[in-house]
Parts: sequence; structure tokens; C-alpha cells
Amino acid sequence: MAQKGWQGNFFEDFELNQELACPTPRTITSGDVATYIALTGDRTPVYCGPSGHIHPLVVFHAVFGQTVRYISLNARANLGYAGIRWRAPVKVGDTLKMDIKIVGLRENSSGQTGIVWVENKATNQRGTVVMTFWRWVMINKRNHDVPTRWLANPVVPEMPAQVDAKDLFVNHDVIPSQRETVSSLKFGDYVKGERILHFDGQTLNHSDHMSFTRLFQNSAKVHFDAKLTGGQPLIYGGVPISIGYAMAHNGLNNRLGIAAINAGAHTAPVHAGNTIYAFTDVLDTVALDDKVGALRLRMIVTKDLDPASLEDPGAFQIQSKDVKGRMRHNKDVVLDLDYWELVAR
Amino acid sequence: MAQKGWQGNFFEDFELNQELACPTPRTITSGDVATYIALTGDRTPVYCGPSGHIHPLVVFHAVFGQTVRYISLNARANLGYAGIRWRAPVKVGDTLKMDIKIVGLRENSSGQTGIVWVENKATNQRGTVVMTFWRWVMINKRNHDVPTRWLANPVVPEMPAQVDAKDLFVNHDVIPSQRETVSSLKFGDYVKGERILHFDGQTLNHSDHMSFTRLFQNSAKVHFDAKLTGGQPLIYGGVPISIGYAMAHNGLNNRLGIAAINAGAHTAPVHAGNTIYAFTDVLDTVALDDKVGALRLRMIVTKDLDPASLEDPGAFQIQSKDVKGRMRHNKDVVLDLDYWELVAR
Amino acid sequence: MAQKGWQGNFFEDFELNQELACPTPRTITSGDVATYIALTGDRTPVYCGPSGHIHPLVVFHAVFGQTVRYISLNARANLGYAGIRWRAPVKVGDTLKMDIKIVGLRENSSGQTGIVWVENKATNQRGTVVMTFWRWVMINKRNHDVPTRWLANPVVPEMPAQVDAKDLFVNHDVIPSQRETVSSLKFGDYVKGERILHFDGQTLNHSDHMSFTRLFQNSAKVHFDAKLTGGQPLIYGGVPISIGYAMAHNGLNNRLGIAAINAGAHTAPVHAGNTIYAFTDVLDTVALDDKVGALRLRMIVTKDLDPASLEDPGAFQIQSKDVKGRMRHNKDVVLDLDYWELVAR
Repeated sequence: MAQKGWQGNFFEDFELNQELACPTPRTITSGDVATYIALTGDRTPVYCGPSGHIHPLVVFHAVFGQTVRYISLNARANLGYAGIRWRAPVKVGDTLKMDIKIVGLRENSSGQTGIVWVENKATNQRGTVVMTFWRWVMINKRNHDVPTRWLANPVVPEMPAQVDAKDLFVNHDVIPSQRETVSSLKFGDYVKGERILHFDGQTLNHSDHMSFTRLFQNSAKVHFDAKLTGGQPLIYGGVPISIGYAMAHNGLNNRLGIAAINAGAHTAPVHAGNTIYAFTDVLDTVALDDKVGALRLRMIVTKDLDPASLEDPGAFQIQSKDVKGRMRHNKDVVLDLDYWELVAR
Repeated sequence: MAQKGWQGNFFEDFELNQELACPTPRTITSGDVATYIALTGDRTPVYCGPSGHIHPLVVFHAVFGQTVRYISLNARANLGYAGIRWRAPVKVGDTLKMDIKIVGLRENSSGQTGIVWVENKATNQRGTVVMTFWRWVMINKRNHDVPTRWLANPVVPEMPAQVDAKDLFVNHDVIPSQRETVSSLKFGDYVKGERILHFDGQTLNHSDHMSFTRLFQNSAKVHFDAKLTGGQPLIYGGVPISIGYAMAHNGLNNRLGIAAINAGAHTAPVHAGNTIYAFTDVLDTVALDDKVGALRLRMIVTKDLDPASLEDPGAFQIQSKDVKGRMRHNKDVVLDLDYWELVAR
Repeated sequence: MAQKGWQGNFFEDFELNQELACPTPRTITSGDVATYIALTGDRTPVYCGPSGHIHPLVVFHAVFGQTVRYISLNARANLGYAGIRWRAPVKVGDTLKMDIKIVGLRENSSGQTGIVWVENKATNQRGTVVMTFWRWVMINKRNHDVPTRWLANPVVPEMPAQVDAKDLFVNHDVIPSQRETVSSLKFGDYVKGERILHFDGQTLNHSDHMSFTRLFQNSAKVHFDAKLTGGQPLIYGGVPISIGYAMAHNGLNNRLGIAAINAGAHTAPVHAGNTIYAFTDVLDTVALDDKVGALRLRMIVTKDLDPASLEDPGAFQIQSKDVKGRMRHNKDVVLDLDYWELVAR
């Protein structure tokens, strides 16, 4: 029976330089703002205030969700992100759409999967580019027995190791006031190498993660179908990003909002019942202008281990060598996110 | 103790031709739109876009919920719907209210219950009729020992077997653009008799179904009270309608939105923990004008059985004969909905 | 390791007459309205209608949540409220902020905790005071071995036993119309001493209570961290207030909205899995003007006991004497709220 219902692309379906417009464009409203707060508890002032500025992570999830139908339905693993940049403000009422381009293809030697590199560009209703990024994903092959030309001749694009601080878009309209944050922690207080604990934890449950994922119209079925997943629907990786980021407000109180992600890795699955915690290492500090500085931060989200409960949280090793001498993430770590945060000076 | 708190109508409380205004009128906002998306994942373009058009099923649930205080509190079973028609657009900020009329009464021979036929009319703040429909419900009698006059002399109104395609209200403002749907599946591609699989599944949980039901101020206690229901609150029948419909976007990508329901039956209870799936049979196709056609569709929602996982999904029998030769719904089927969908040509 | 992440005030950190501005001011939107309805099912007409008036309890939770970072992170128990007054209308788009002042301090003889009395004042973006109240909280001491001066010389402010009916703010714009409530129950129908059953029950679950608590940016970790709480996150006391109040619409259909709380006590913890019910005793009736009267009500919320299921609900004892002759709340009671409700005449 030929099927009208879309079952997603397999590795063989992608072409190099293929461009795809993604459904469904989405208008972001104050309803999305409230739902996001109810699902994360985020209290970064400007995104709870009267200006209508939309939280950068709401923008990210909304446009990321639009790529799922093409990229994620037959994905085996979300391998990485690079060069995630927010490029223009998004406000209540803006409509966001995503266009993607396939920029790299490599079949894996197993014959079962291949890696697809995707360039992503999100624009608003005026055609302004609001976000761009790359991601790469391991995708199932339809036919494991027939190699593609990407086995012998892979095309692997070079991904930027980081976004340069000078390329960060700074929106001076989202600098919080002293009355809003009631915090004296400013850009100049942060030093390279310090570790910031956030002293919070959230236990995840089926309803919260599914509502979050549906809000952003991410319809990858592994997140929703308990029968398909042995009773353990996989939590969308955006959930620990957003909840970790919400918790990270404590200690980054004068932040303006995430401006770029240099790299990110989902290092272990997260399921309902897990309790997640976060801490942040300061990797770099770069003054941008007289009002705003950029902090390069490494946010680590853990599951079922509260870093603040350790005798010496500063000694917690994010990664360690396995028996073969390769660096591996500690089993308690579920997210390792290297990003640029803007902070008022 | 005489009680101010309302305990609902029993069968004896209804009068033929009785007219009732239902509380509480409801203003539909962008908050309702976002909450609905978070609870269903629906991605039909126009109802996620900037125009402010409200999803027909949001309209339905909002006005249906208003009838619950009068009709559902002592209901034993929701027996059927007929002639559900959406008659005018509803947009963000509109306020909807429901007025109902009792048009049929029949006491059942058991003496325990009776059937009430209800005519429903929903209007907006300008007095425009936005929806009309009939439903009939089995309602407990207060006094099982005293027959009513509706036992010997029942009044059973004739319900329309279907809505005529020519009576469908077509809103040309909700035709999706190619950029929104990115789908070439147009009206002309559908053929009578085909079965469309939607390749999706959602596991339901207590919070999601209760939030959905509260959003629409449906306060029938069987949906909320686990003690009353042996730990198994009954999921409001609107939940499988909306989640099934959301899943049915896959394969009906250029739909404009449901325009009428000819008939609907909730054929088995749904509880938290069930995973629901949907498929759609095309019953009829009727071109309406040069832009829009109507598909008469039969959406079947199943629980704990993914039709796409069957060796031959096309052979799945929705109904079969029981030992007495009566047609019965397959035990896996929870909803059988015969409706008119509008699709761009 | 010195920490930028805030870990909350201990008893020793408070000073008499200390004034604190609380983060994060919050703009209340139609998204919050919809989320609140989805989480409570509240159907008080004016707060579901086109006027944009915000439910008094939404206002309360939004500004209460702002005090949590200073007051609640190391709280042992929420001891009481007094003089909670709503003083001006709040409408969609208003931004609310909270300022607090420490007005009493007493160290407990155990040396482990002290009591802090807090005066709370919430204002909108125009500087109009929208709410004021007092609460007192038992807060952990940082150092159990060193007494503070508040042990020998406590300062215990006198709290008002009640708000005078003549001081209630009456907003005539929120009087419901007959079409909205479709109820003939008016102020004159209520008599001192009567008990009103609400005939409803809701089983709470982890997702609902956490979403409610996050919506109002209350980040006290006992509400969210199942590991910290032995699998039993404590439900924020605002949840039974709001769900009890939502259920209490049945029997108080022509209410305008809560105008003041005289006193309130959370008398037992509530957890996911509990089913809550409510009834209301009428303590007093005071006509205010020709359109509106005030009812002094005592709302009792119970868990896992439906008062309507008792043979004689009117005989249910809220409190009884323990073996030492002290009045104690019945173990089934979780909330005892003495408040002023406005009702149309």
C-alpha cells in the first residue's frame, strides 16, 4: 500500500547541497512564553517582562522542531551542533520558519547508517535571519546491503570550533535593570576557570517532557510512544538544555540571554523519573562594549547526582579516560554545552 | 442539608423543548492556542500562524465544555453526535457561549436511565452562530422506581445521517500556502476507499488529559477523581479526537481544518497509560470550488495497537460481527469519527 | 569554593526593618490566564472573559513566587498569613513586582530555627499597590550553636485577626452577568453558619503541581526534586488554594473573586497521588453596596476524603481536641482558609 503519510528520510534520500523548506512556520505568542515558563521555571527577567522579547531558547526549539520531519524521524543519534548563533531579536507575534541545506554526507562502515550534516537558517516574517546553525545526525539507511557513494567518497564539511565573541549579536534592549535582577553579580565578577553551582534540581516526568516537545511541534515518535520505547520514551534533548539553563539563572542573574552555542553533546539519555541538576564552568570572558560582556560557559547537566551535594564539587570530573585511553563523559553527565552568554557589566 | 452546590441534572429534570443557557462563556486567546499545541502537538499551519484563526477543535471543546454542568454530571454514556457543523471563523479574542435545547427524551426499559437528545448552538460576542450540533447522552434517573412519561411516550428526533458537502462552510482565509505545508498532497490526490496511515503514537498520562479537560472547563468528575474511579480516571473523549486529529496531519498536510462531523462514537474507554494511534479511511471526495475540496473521512483511533505495525494495515477490520451477528467495533478501536475535512486543491 | 549561586537566607541573615526588592518582576499575559485555567479548571466568568481582568489568585501566586528566593529556600514551615488584601485591578499586560520588609524576628528555643515576619507589597508598572499582606515563616538557622539576639529579645508584631469588610476593594467591573453565570444564587441567599459542598475532586500529580509552581516562578526545591524528598516532592501550598477555590465556584457561582484572606493554614502536606476536595462554611455576610456583598468564608480542603460522601457532611469536624486538650485540625484537612469573597447581590 503506497502511503501518503510521511515516514521520514533515510540516509539514501539526502543529496549534497539539497535545500529543503521545513513545515510548519510558527507564530510565537505570549501563550508560548507562559507555557515555556510553566515547563521550565525560567526567570530571566527580560523574557518575563513587558517588552515581548522571546527567550532565545524558545526561538531555538521552535525552529529546531521544524526540522524534525525531514531529519529526525529515522535518526539514530543526534551527534553534534556547531555555530549556533542568534542573529536578531524575536518578539511576540513574529512568525519563524526554517530552511535547511544538506552540506555533508558520509556513510558509516557498518552499512547501516550514515551521517548527514545540515545547515539551518531560521527567518522571521520579514525575511530577517534570526538564527543559523549546523548540526549533524546519524541517520538509518533504508537498505543496509547497498552502499551509497558517500561510503567511498564522503563529504565532511569543516565545522567551526567556536563562534567568535566579536560575531555575537548584542541586543541592548534586553539588558536587565537592577530592580529586575536585584543582583550585583556583573560581568566583571566572573573569572576564567571558576565553577558556578546552581543549587537546584528538577525531577522530570512524562507529561512535562512531552508537553515541552509538543509545544515546539517536535514529533519524533521516540519522545511520545511508550510502547515503541519499552515504557521509556526518550526525553527530547532540548528539555535538559532548557531546564539546565533555567536553573543556571542562579549565579548568572544579570545575563541577557544565550547568544551562541559553540558545541553541544547529549552524552546520555534522559528519561522520566530522572532528576537533573546543572553547574557551569567559566571558559572565557570577553568584554564586548561598555554595557555588555560575553562569558564563554560550559554548562553541564547531570542526572540523579546533585553536584552541590558532593564534598568537593569543584573536583567533579566531567570526563575521564576509558580503558582505551579515550576521553568519555562521566556516566552522570547528560549534557555538555559550550555556549556564549551575554552579561551586563 | 439543602445544597447550593450543583449536582447536575438527572433524567427527570429535563423537559422537552427546554432551553438552557450554559455557563461560562469563554474568550479564546493565544494562550489557549499555545496550550492546545503543547497538549496535542497539532501543526496544521493556519492554526499556528499569524492570522489568529482558532483551530476548529479548540472551538468545539470550548463550547462542548460549557454543556457539561447540565448534561454530563450524571451521564452514564455519551451515545452519539450528529450534524456537527462549524459555521463561521473564530479568531483570537472572540468570546464563545453555548445555548442548548432538549429535543428528544426516551426512558430506557431498565428504569435506571434515559436518553436525552440535545441541540447545541454556539455563538460569538457578535451573536454570530459559530457551531451547531446534536448529541445524545444516556443520563441516570434520580428515581429508578418511578417511570417518567418518556417511557411510554418517547420523543426521538431524527438525526441527520450526515452533513451535506454543499452545506460546509469554507473559509478561504485558512488555505495553507505551499511554503507552510511544503507538501504536494492536494485534494485531487485522494481517492475514495484509500486508507491513510499516520505513523505516530502518543502515550497518554494523567496530567496531560486532565490539563486538556480543564483547559476547556469540562468539569465532569470522572475525568479527575482517581478515588472515585478506582485509580483510573476516564479520559475525556475529546482527547483522542484531538490527538488523533493532530497525528492525522501527516498525510493530510494541505488540510484547512475539520468542517463538519457526520457521526462519532467513543467505542472503548481510554485511560492514562494507553498509547493511541490513528489511521484514516477516505469515504468520499467532493470538489467544492476551484480552491477547495471536501474529503469525507473516517478517522479511527486505536489504543495499544499501532496499525502501521500490522503486516497488512489495509486489512485491519474496524468492526466485525459478534456471536449474535451484530457489528461491533474491534476492541482496539476507541474512536470512530466520520467527518468532513477541507483540503486545498 | 565561594559560590555565586544563591543558597537563600538563613535566620541569621535577616535584620529588623530590612527592606528587600524581589526578583523577577512578571508581566501577566493571556498565556498565564490559559495556563492557569488548564491547571485548575477555574471558571469564574470574568477571569475567562474578554475584559482581561486577572484572577486574584494568579496575582497572588505571581507576587508570592517572587519572595521565594529570599524567604523560602531555607524555610522549615510556612506558619501563617494575615491581612492579605487585593487593592487594585490587575489586567493582561500589567507587570507586577514585589517588595518586602522584615517586621518581626524571634528565635525558637530549639536554637535550630527562628520565625520571620514579612510584610509584602506588590505594585504594578505604574506604581499602584495591587496587593499587600503579611506572612510568617519558620526558617533554619545557619548555626545552631550560636543564639541570636532574637532569642532573648524577640520582636513579634501584632497581626490583624481579620480584614474589615469595609476595607475590601470592590471592582464593579468584575460583576458577572446573569448570562455568564446562569445562576440565581446571589449574596442574599447565603446565611451565616451554612456549609456549602462543592461536589468535585481532583487527583494531583507531579506534572500538574510542578507546572503550576514553575508558572509562578516559585523555585523552592522541595517542590521539584524527588531525590531530595524521598520521592515525594511537597506540593506548593498554592495548589490546594487554587484548586479548592476553582472547585468552590460550584455554589458560589456569582462570586466576583476573592478580595482578602484573613488567615490561612496549610495543616497537612499534600503530595502527588492525593485527591483533594473542598467545602466552604459561611462565617459572615456583610452587604457592601447595592450591587455587591461580602461573604466571610472558611474554605476547607481535604485530601483523600470526599466530604460529600459522608453520611452527614454538616457534622464533619474540621478540628478536634488532642489528648492534651489542644485544638488540632482533622488529619484529612490540608488547608483552612478564612477569606472574604465578593458576591453579586
